[in-house]
Amino acid sequence: MTDKRNVKADRLSGFIASAFQACGMSESNSERMGELMAEADIGGQDGHGVFRLPMYIRRIRAGGMEVNPDIKVISERTATALLDGGNGPGHLVMSRAAELAVEKAKTCGVAWVGARYSNHAGPAFLYARMPLAENMIGLYVAVGSANHMPPWGGTDLLLSTNPISVAIPSNAQADIVLDMATTVAAYGKVKTAADRGETMPEGWMIDKQGQPLTDPTRSAEGLLLPIGGPKGYGLSLIFGLLAGTLNGAAFGKDVVDFNADPKATTNTGHFVVALDIAAFADVDTFKRQVDGIWDEMKSSALLPGVEGIRLPGERLAATSAERLAEGIPIPQALGSRLDALADELGIERL
Amino acid sequence: MTDKRNVKADRLSGFIASAFQACGMSESNSERMGELMAEADIGGQDGHGVFRLPMYIRRIRAGGMEVNPDIKVISERTATALLDGGNGPGHLVMSRAAELAVEKAKTCGVAWVGARYSNHAGPAFLYARMPLAENMIGLYVAVGSANHMPPWGGTDLLLSTNPISVAIPSNAQADIVLDMATTVAAYGKVKTAADRGETMPEGWMIDKQGQPLTDPTRSAEGLLLPIGGPKGYGLSLIFGLLAGTLNGAAFGKDVVDFNADPKATTNTGHFVVALDIAAFADVDTFKRQVDGIWDEMKSSALLPGVEGIRLPGERLAATSAERLAEGIPIPQALGSRLDALADELGIERL
Repeated sequence: MTDKRNVKADRLSGFIASAFQACGMSESNSERMGELMAEADIGGQDGHGVFRLPMYIRRIRAGGMEVNPDIKVISERTATALLDGGNGPGHLVMSRAAELAVEKAKTCGVAWVGARYSNHAGPAFLYARMPLAENMIGLYVAVGSANHMPPWGGTDLLLSTNPISVAIPSNAQADIVLDMATTVAAYGKVKTAADRGETMPEGWMIDKQGQPLTDPTRSAEGLLLPIGGPKGYGLSLIFGLLAGTLNGAAFGKDVVDFNADPKATTNTGHFVVALDIAAFADVDTFKRQVDGIWDEMKSSALLPGVEGIRLPGERLAATSAERLAEGIPIPQALGSRLDALADELGIERL
Repeated sequence: MTDKRNVKADRLSGFIASAFQACGMSESNSERMGELMAEADIGGQDGHGVFRLPMYIRRIRAGGMEVNPDIKVISERTATALLDGGNGPGHLVMSRAAELAVEKAKTCGVAWVGARYSNHAGPAFLYARMPLAENMIGLYVAVGSANHMPPWGGTDLLLSTNPISVAIPSNAQADIVLDMATTVAAYGKVKTAADRGETMPEGWMIDKQGQPLTDPTRSAEGLLLPIGGPKGYGLSLIFGLLAGTLNGAAFGKDVVDFNADPKATTNTGHFVVALDIAAFADVDTFKRQVDGIWDEMKSSALLPGVEGIRLPGERLAATSAERLAEGIPIPQALGSRLDALADELGIERL
């Protein structure tokens, strides 16, 4: 395709790091941002990687996000901690949170680390996957960065897509990585449909009269629908209370639209849990059992017209392998925005 | 209505306790069973309370479930434990698990206790709600006791409804209690529809050709559908790995149909998490904030035709209050089955 070009992962992470360094971020933090944001793109979460860079930079320059945040533990038990993210990028806050959770889980078996005064952190899988390196299971939940969903039966936008990710290591197969919004469609998919001039399927959004809304350019009038009706609403509410309210972070009407307002402090809340497999099972045996479950699902007979069963994390692994080998496709429109950003910051173009 | 009669809660719990005692269960365990099973009925989970008593008794008498199980901690860290339930009733195993989780969370801030060699434990909310008494948040997940769902796109019944419950205390309002299957409809709702001669709505089940199945008497040929399509499949899979595989309990093809086979050991797995609010926030402030979120949701403008917003746990609280005052309705057919059971066990009828 002529409207895309492929960029190698290390080049992409280097470019992102340069952009943050040009704004005054420390070298180590900039590199961390580069790695994590590129990891989102490598994994195929195109709406959560470098795509967000211009918006993050805009927020930093508008004074809405700290470039060198003072991330502090403000309360702690042996298996828990609450971080104040110092209004820094969510990536820095939540990678710190995941490190701390892993450290604590090594002795305690499990650890739960929450954060307040954080910001958008990219895709959920980044943090759920961090404990895997230590043979732990990871779990991550966030309050989404803008409200697009009402309580079930209502029309006021009081809830977000509040995503959950859970990562469970396997042996020979790809790691099981679930990463899902509590809405039928994440809002990024609505934006992508609008960009492409496509119609949305019924079931993604309704309007305030309860009628299906399929024109993504009208999404500002629309309400995202939760998965399973009242069930997805319940999940979004519970996750918001756990990731937001419990941490002293924003939830409900206090949630600031991260895209619309670059200056207001978002006070984004998230939490991460690390669960040490060895506290329950022999690690190798467990991983082989996960392979076994993988195989069982794959060998199911299929519904007519279905080509195969997919496991959560399978596409992530395949996309990652492909993009690490062949580079990350950057659509022309995004490339132009990144070029403009590079010129503005006085750094080398991607 | 003439086909129901109301029974006071303490009479119901006493009847249940007598039934287990007649099978040789210890007095304290029998009372525990009576309280917990009646609590399911009080809360309105009619398919998970005394309704299950004949089946539990049948399993005990067939040698498929231990009446006085030896419940043991088989591995432990400061914030985790794995219980071997000794093939006892899930109620005894998981109330022990919840007690242990609460005890550990008092010092550690959070605790995660899993169990293997357990059995059906009634409704999930029972165990998620236990930590509330200690100002903790509770979370409970189980591998369902029969597979009724295929992996997304498949037709082999490898997954169950694998439910989750999360309980979060409020101050002046009812506690927030989410209790949901990862399927659109729990299998109990299908059975209830069959009992009543009703048709199921489209979206609950499909047949193996992928066509909607709305006749509940054909449910044995049907597949339950997950909430949010692949998302609910992913949740069910993840919960099965965490509650089953990680604990050395059954998951996937190893799951025994609890209803169909009264002899085979089910090796049911579950886990419960207790999270101490005080490790993150001032307890009273937090509970008032939960009230605030409750009020926010309630005050949302409504979609046409909707009477009001409901919070998870609201109906549970209302039903509990009503049934504690007026008794628990026992349909005639169930009443007759319980009478027959009482006669068989030589105990006083309900």
